[in-house]
Amino acid sequence: MKVNGKNYTAVWLKGKKVKMVDQLLLPFRFEITESNNWKETAAAIKNMTVRGAGTIGATAAFGMVQAVLEAPEHQFKNFVHNAAKELKQTRPTAHDLFNSVEKMLKEVNESKNLRQAKKKSIAKSQEIFQSYISAGKKTAEFGNRLIEKNSRILTHCNAGWLALVEWGSATAPIYLANRLGKKPFVFVGETRPRIQGGLTSWEMQNEGIEHALIVDSAAGHFLQKREIDLVITGADRIALNGDVANKIGTYEKAVVAKENRVPFYVAAPLSTFDLSIENGKEIPIEERDAKEILYANVEKKGKIEKAKIFSENTEVKNPAFDVTPAKYITGIITPKGILRPKKNEIKKLFKKY
Amino acid sequence: MKVNGKNYTAVWLKGKKVKMVDQLLLPFRFEITESNNWKETAAAIKNMTVRGAGTIGATAAFGMVQAVLEAPEHQFKNFVHNAAKELKQTRPTAHDLFNSVEKMLKEVNESKNLRQAKKKSIAKSQEIFQSYISAGKKTAEFGNRLIEKNSRILTHCNAGWLALVEWGSATAPIYLANRLGKKPFVFVGETRPRIQGGLTSWEMQNEGIEHALIVDSAAGHFLQKREIDLVITGADRIALNGDVANKIGTYEKAVVAKENRVPFYVAAPLSTFDLSIENGKEIPIEERDAKEILYANVEKKGKIEKAKIFSENTEVKNPAFDVTPAKYITGIITPKGILRPKKNEIKKLFKKY
Repeated sequence: MKVNGKNYTAVWLKGKKVKMVDQLLLPFRFEITESNNWKETAAAIKNMTVRGAGTIGATAAFGMVQAVLEAPEHQFKNFVHNAAKELKQTRPTAHDLFNSVEKMLKEVNESKNLRQAKKKSIAKSQEIFQSYISAGKKTAEFGNRLIEKNSRILTHCNAGWLALVEWGSATAPIYLANRLGKKPFVFVGETRPRIQGGLTSWEMQNEGIEHALIVDSAAGHFLQKREIDLVITGADRIALNGDVANKIGTYEKAVVAKENRVPFYVAAPLSTFDLSIENGKEIPIEERDAKEILYANVEKKGKIEKAKIFSENTEVKNPAFDVTPAKYITGIITPKGILRPKKNEIKKLFKKY
Repeated sequence: MKVNGKNYTAVWLKGKKVKMVDQLLLPFRFEITESNNWKETAAAIKNMTVRGAGTIGATAAFGMVQAVLEAPEHQFKNFVHNAAKELKQTRPTAHDLFNSVEKMLKEVNESKNLRQAKKKSIAKSQEIFQSYISAGKKTAEFGNRLIEKNSRILTHCNAGWLALVEWGSATAPIYLANRLGKKPFVFVGETRPRIQGGLTSWEMQNEGIEHALIVDSAAGHFLQKREIDLVITGADRIALNGDVANKIGTYEKAVVAKENRVPFYVAAPLSTFDLSIENGKEIPIEERDAKEILYANVEKKGKIEKAKIFSENTEVKNPAFDVTPAKYITGIITPKGILRPKKNEIKKLFKKY
């Protein structure tokens, strides 16, 4: 996607280097950082220089390429296995990270020698990288059908290109619609406590999409006032019955959207569906550190630091996600089409692919 | 109410001095500040050292006492009228401020000489001050009936004692219930953008009430999980049909509470009712400065300052209030009893008093 008029992906491989948009500095400053070896790449995933399921998946694949390129001839498989183990441990709950490293490992295991392993792993990493881009593009094409000229769309959190290499999930249809001249307007929920709305509004700004950041609680007001035509959010996990776990606050938006008869869509790649889970009640909700609420990232004279916005000993509850029951969801936008959040439709989708 | 085990009101008169809890330093630091003359008192209202309808009303009354005490014998009425004019202009939309100054002015106008004016104005200011306290106490008594042992209550924004001299409106029933040994638990919505939840959790902490601050969007999650038994918020304006304008986000909480069959109450003094307004659609919604969202008050090494939490040129919409239609409101807690949000009940209340 565009930054200052130039095209970027959230991560890419250049020779032996992994180039990354440094997400720790956003939305305050846009910088490309690079890692020179697999250990630095693992560190970049762990410290959240890169974040988001797809971007982590692609970054890990490139980290595996680096490991292969750095491996000593005589025991390259050992070396790469060790790197794979460490890469997988950088973000223990990221499903795409695990998948991606396993796929890369398979290529190396099937190689007869280091020369072949180098060739095969570079090719595989590019395939993984491209698969995220084409999934985003497909999501964009299906979702675009929901967007009319001058549609006003609410999104929550950042399911944007920073998180999914390019296009994003929730944002993908918006980007395509805008490039097709539909001029959508986007309400960007700031998404406390981690304020990922800052990333989304930064993305929108760079793509030249009209938008406004709002505090999370203001979404209801604009829904009530008929100033929002459509809601699209991402998803963290989708159960077999269509219940969706996503960033805290998604449930509130969905309930108020339904109350005001505004369609509520979720956009997600196939990897987000968890067919082992019958319904949302089975999804555990992660309770995160109080510090996420009590401190904010602030910028002052070019320096970015954590600063206290509440008094130190404030008691806090900080659930990171909530579950939106399927009945509030109009449809799920996937790279394979838009489906209703129903067990039979979800099952059918996975039988096909 | 209690701070570090000692009883305080948000403002009080001591001789010629007005003593105030400095709300600009909260929740980071508790300090009593004082103003020595009516001009300093006017400045304290204007710069929000004191805030909240009732607290502003009482402070203005005390400022008028100072003006009378400072007035020169030969033209004291002129002097006091000038002070009244300036005091009324400190916060142009505060209804209580206007009312309070007018009441004080009447005492001065009816006085035959400065000596009598001094006596009458001191007595009137104490009457105004006490009226806020007794209104809070009455609100506490009626609202307390809604609270059971270990009730879990959600509130939004700060309708606490800091804003209403003592007791507060939304918080009053909670304080009384706690003092009666019911041990309520309070979910405190942080209330972006100005984060008045920090004031409410500070109040709760000092009164020894179990509570947890949550981000605004998390309220729905806890309502859905049946972890909240009751919602009580304050109100900024109540229309004749029972529609309520209050801090942005109140509407969302009310809709999600109703969806989960959790009772939703509003607590307000009689001065909050605006019988000239038929329904909520007539209430204009103030759009406030983008800076409220883009900057936060942060504390570092004892210094409190504004810091940037978004990039400077982020586009923002910042409505300060929303309107909750009467159909989402279970009841309105007033110092005169709890009423249903219906035109005939509201009319009846005002015919009586």
